[in-house]
Amino acid sequence: MKAQVLRTYDPALTAPHWVHDETVADPKIIKSQDVVVRIGGAGVCRTDLHIIEGIWRPHMDPNGNALLPLIMGHENAGWIEEIGPEVEGFKIGDPVIVHPKITGGTCLACRRGHDMHGDGTFPGLDSNGGYAEYLATSARNLVALPKTLAPKDVAPYSDAGLTAYRAAKKAAQTLLPDQSVVVIGAGGLGHIGVQVLRAMCAATIIVVDKSDISLELAGHGGADHLIKADGGEVEAVKALTGGKGAEAVLDFVGERGTTKKGLDMTRPMGSYYIVGYGEDIQIPTVDLIITERNIIGNLVGTWAELNELMALADRGLVELATKHYALKDANLALQDLHHGKIKGRAVLIP
Amino acid sequence: MKAQVLRTYDPALTAPHWVHDETVADPKIIKSQDVVVRIGGAGVCRTDLHIIEGIWRPHMDPNGNALLPLIMGHENAGWIEEIGPEVEGFKIGDPVIVHPKITGGTCLACRRGHDMHGDGTFPGLDSNGGYAEYLATSARNLVALPKTLAPKDVAPYSDAGLTAYRAAKKAAQTLLPDQSVVVIGAGGLGHIGVQVLRAMCAATIIVVDKSDISLELAGHGGADHLIKADGGEVEAVKALTGGKGAEAVLDFVGERGTTKKGLDMTRPMGSYYIVGYGEDIQIPTVDLIITERNIIGNLVGTWAELNELMALADRGLVELATKHYALKDANLALQDLHHGKIKGRAVLIP
Amino acid sequence: MKAQVLRTYDPALTAPHWVHDETVADPKIIKSQDVVVRIGGAGVCRTDLHIIEGIWRPHMDPNGNALLPLIMGHENAGWIEEIGPEVEGFKIGDPVIVHPKITGGTCLACRRGHDMHGDGTFPGLDSNGGYAEYLATSARNLVALPKTLAPKDVAPYSDAGLTAYRAAKKAAQTLLPDQSVVVIGAGGLGHIGVQVLRAMCAATIIVVDKSDISLELAGHGGADHLIKADGGEVEAVKALTGGKGAEAVLDFVGERGTTKKGLDMTRPMGSYYIVGYGEDIQIPTVDLIITERNIIGNLVGTWAELNELMALADRGLVELATKHYALKDANLALQDLHHGKIKGRAVLIP
Amino acid sequence: MKAQVLRTYDPALTAPHWVHDETVADPKIIKSQDVVVRIGGAGVCRTDLHIIEGIWRPHMDPNGNALLPLIMGHENAGWIEEIGPEVEGFKIGDPVIVHPKITGGTCLACRRGHDMHGDGTFPGLDSNGGYAEYLATSARNLVALPKTLAPKDVAPYSDAGLTAYRAAKKAAQTLLPDQSVVVIGAGGLGHIGVQVLRAMCAATIIVVDKSDISLELAGHGGADHLIKADGGEVEAVKALTGGKGAEAVLDFVGERGTTKKGLDMTRPMGSYYIVGYGEDIQIPTVDLIITERNIIGNLVGTWAELNELMALADRGLVELATKHYALKDANLALQDLHHGKIKGRAVLIP
Repeated sequence: MKAQVLRTYDPALTAPHWVHDETVADPKIIKSQDVVVRIGGAGVCRTDLHIIEGIWRPHMDPNGNALLPLIMGHENAGWIEEIGPEVEGFKIGDPVIVHPKITGGTCLACRRGHDMHGDGTFPGLDSNGGYAEYLATSARNLVALPKTLAPKDVAPYSDAGLTAYRAAKKAAQTLLPDQSVVVIGAGGLGHIGVQVLRAMCAATIIVVDKSDISLELAGHGGADHLIKADGGEVEAVKALTGGKGAEAVLDFVGERGTTKKGLDMTRPMGSYYIVGYGEDIQIPTVDLIITERNIIGNLVGTWAELNELMALADRGLVELATKHYALKDANLALQDLHHGKIKGRAVLIP
Repeated sequence: MKAQVLRTYDPALTAPHWVHDETVADPKIIKSQDVVVRIGGAGVCRTDLHIIEGIWRPHMDPNGNALLPLIMGHENAGWIEEIGPEVEGFKIGDPVIVHPKITGGTCLACRRGHDMHGDGTFPGLDSNGGYAEYLATSARNLVALPKTLAPKDVAPYSDAGLTAYRAAKKAAQTLLPDQSVVVIGAGGLGHIGVQVLRAMCAATIIVVDKSDISLELAGHGGADHLIKADGGEVEAVKALTGGKGAEAVLDFVGERGTTKKGLDMTRPMGSYYIVGYGEDIQIPTVDLIITERNIIGNLVGTWAELNELMALADRGLVELATKHYALKDANLALQDLHHGKIKGRAVLIP
Repeated sequence: MKAQVLRTYDPALTAPHWVHDETVADPKIIKSQDVVVRIGGAGVCRTDLHIIEGIWRPHMDPNGNALLPLIMGHENAGWIEEIGPEVEGFKIGDPVIVHPKITGGTCLACRRGHDMHGDGTFPGLDSNGGYAEYLATSARNLVALPKTLAPKDVAPYSDAGLTAYRAAKKAAQTLLPDQSVVVIGAGGLGHIGVQVLRAMCAATIIVVDKSDISLELAGHGGADHLIKADGGEVEAVKALTGGKGAEAVLDFVGERGTTKKGLDMTRPMGSYYIVGYGEDIQIPTVDLIITERNIIGNLVGTWAELNELMALADRGLVELATKHYALKDANLALQDLHHGKIKGRAVLIP
Repeated sequence: MKAQVLRTYDPALTAPHWVHDETVADPKIIKSQDVVVRIGGAGVCRTDLHIIEGIWRPHMDPNGNALLPLIMGHENAGWIEEIGPEVEGFKIGDPVIVHPKITGGTCLACRRGHDMHGDGTFPGLDSNGGYAEYLATSARNLVALPKTLAPKDVAPYSDAGLTAYRAAKKAAQTLLPDQSVVVIGAGGLGHIGVQVLRAMCAATIIVVDKSDISLELAGHGGADHLIKADGGEVEAVKALTGGKGAEAVLDFVGERGTTKKGLDMTRPMGSYYIVGYGEDIQIPTVDLIITERNIIGNLVGTWAELNELMALADRGLVELATKHYALKDANLALQDLHHGKIKGRAVLIP
């Protein structure tokens, strides 16, 4: 099959081409629950740039270059091409979106429904992913797509969307109509987060972003108040929340000072949900205690949550802005992402 | 002051006049937290008809006729006329809606936030209520009204709306976007329930009612599917829910067979919320166990929940249909209610 | 292998022998996750008597006698004898307890951790069970036993114990130290329930039973108050709970009037957990609403909950009274159970 | 009345006497819900030393020395001496323990049961406290003591015990029997925390402390594993928890490096509860996200939780080690506390 292959790291991200158009062996069915998916769309994620930079080497490739060559792509959707002998409930040709973490399903985390905390592989990060014509995965990773949703339009939900969904859902399940929630950063993830909050709770939604375009998008997604992040955003949030801050703050940035600002915007008894990453969180213990605030970590969601997110998308309650590229133009998509030229999410189509 | 006074029970509801236009003593401030409210609107509730019939005598008047004469009216809003010497946070003239249960605030139920489970009085049922120019209540019962909401337009939220809100909120906090909720009966309470569900969760909302007008109202309130209750409603719900029923069923009727149908519409692991009343619930234990379903009782909400409901109303997320009558026309309002001539809720205005 | 086989129903339970000592084909590995367990112990359950009576025919054998001949036995523990080619984490010889419901693990119920609500089979009820030397199951059903626990001593935990655990856990997670819980029926299931409550919450435990022996056992298990069920049990519970009843009532009987009494013992805002079955629950809707009580259905627990229960047993926090019989004496064990001659649970040992 | 009065701050804690034995005016009933309590015992807390040092001046006395002279003492129990005209449910002579935060009971935080988050005063910190013969408080602050509990023996429960209870309760309500909880610091608060965990959940309890005496006390309180804090405590916890850490970690120290160690002991999906204070929490955002861990702030508990804690104490499920001093020996008690000479909690008795 055709694939775009990463062969060398590029810490400075200065090479003209990062991935190479190659013909590689097709993935094969080995175990009884294996599935091969014909890719309909593969999302291009900032994490892919971080893989190229080598930032994930300590986690994914601790012993040197054993990971490369790698086919990236961890946000995948398409159609079932081939299925293992014991797969039930799916047949060849079915359109599917692919949960990113392959797990065995028998460990305690899986049995409690927390798939992404089980042991397993994460194609696109530690094994071959979806920048290709075909992807090897497992029947446990498939969520059937309704007819309303085409693989190329939903692929980024499988990781970016699912992470935003999980964090927004956690907050929504505690928020009451007389309370407020702040979303810091209404980009790729944050914009989904705003729509999920709007669908799942009646709290007042306040969005903070540096970009006018993102704020406008957040307004269309259901935000009640839009705040330009110009240095006065903490005071602006307090002015909208009776001086004490919001009951929930979702930080989709996690760098350039948003963690301190996000905590300052969080009301006593409230929770600060960290989703974006980069800087350290630093806070005096006494400040957390006197105010009884919480800091909540957030990972990608479960398989059941991907199912829930597809229900929202099917009914038009969340929408995703995508920009499509041919698979052979993967370098262009990565470069466009690197240079801030993409609104929403880039998707490669074989 | 002027008041409409109930002097005799009328079990058959056949008397031409039930309440009498009288001049009675004004309520007075006695305790330090007492408040007198000038009535802006007093909701007329089916419970008032039940009081006239004598249905509540065993609960409220167990020793005979000691309860009468009674000024009915347990859904009240207006302006503060007079305040006790230790009331803080309110001043004369403030527009307020009145939580219906007066409690001391120091018992364990109150201290855990469950005001309506505390010991106390319920003006309009066991002491004089709001079919009058003035009402005696306590500072603990007041929720300040925002400028967007006039007392005469919101009075029925204080009991009918608050009961619907509490039940819908319980369900909403467990419902996921790939799940369904059925509302049986989209009348006075049910119609509020539909709007609360729409605002607070992303589940698919299915409404079952006999009346086309109620179904149309439910559609405007955000219902996804409308089912005419013609005998085939259980099958209709199952057809919309993959054959197994809905994860939550809210029954605002509770008589004429809805309890059995409502339970039959409830999916395994799901919950049936009973709000309306009249008939018995009857179900084999083995049926509850094999399916692991729950039956959830629902009372009027807490003070904090009245605050939450006012936040929804303030932002236009719930709307209440009302029909206004002069206080002196209380008998007409009661008759119209008795004869099914009111859409939404009747409200008396002094 | 040797097995005890049911060949005909006996509605009156009067036959001298119900099961027959036969030699049947050994179970075989067919699918990649299949496992054959050598039985160390198979619990004898009242449900087995109900199967013999034919009570389960409408559910398990709706089209006639297709289910028979059947090897009963749904409470099994032993050692792994053979494993399918893709089973991971277990090896031949490992001691295990077997979760009773075999499911595929990919449906939504399974993916949310609610295994027993997934589609599948229930060996001993709808396919061959553990009244035999070997049992066919799936790797998903195995929970590894710690060295402290022998299969013959823990087999009944897999269904009876797991059902009691799940109900008691639900209650324990809501009960506070100033609250009370009533256990109706401290027999096979109830006695486990008392111990689980004692380990998992600090509420006052009140046990109601007709049998002095059961009450004594409950006292050893950690009950704070023992009430002989002699007709005055509702009043006795109210006297111990400030006149209002207990916040939680677990009914392990579910017949002979316990459902009405159990509900009468349940405090406003409290929950009545139904586990035993037999009679109908009947209650006026108005009674549920005014008191805002709940009725909670309870099924056998999840795989994760079987893991939790084994952690309790491993640390000695729950103990199970068992009476051992040779497999060939299955009829004797069933007769003894039928005639009330067993304290705790009977277990067959091949 | 006699009182021990703080007249000057002593930042270095070097003065021979900090408080002065004086005769001051008796507290008076002013408002209708006011209560004067005759002190039976007043707990001496490390916070009192911090007040003397002036650490709380920025919070409690921001405009200079307006706070002094101050009667310290925020952990009080005794008997009702005098009651306001509208107090119900209590009478003169009743033994009571006093919740430390006086609030009006009508703000939203109070109405949701979160008293300590309401506006109000905190006697002993921002107004006169219990180092005296009498204390002014409000009826809302009283919890009746059962006959089993003497004021002088329970006074420290009102703040130290209540803080430990709230944190341990939060953890207990999520912990399952196959999970573990670490308690860092088994001193005054931590020792109560261990007993509360033992009573309210079945998780394995691991206690980490530098002091052999504290570890021994924790063992008596129900800890399963005791770890001497000698630098290897993170590895020791991991060795006991399958290499991944505990599902919950309660840090009653919050300084000298425990926050980093505590977070390192926290398993993926687990929560780190911060109770003690002193240092900053610092953690890379990526570490919180990849592991999806939470950091939970903890304040003193609610009035209802003080009720719950008294239920535990009444039934002997928690016990408090106290050392009694005469009120006139307040300086000695404070010095003994400062020099580490007190096991458990010091209590002043007028």
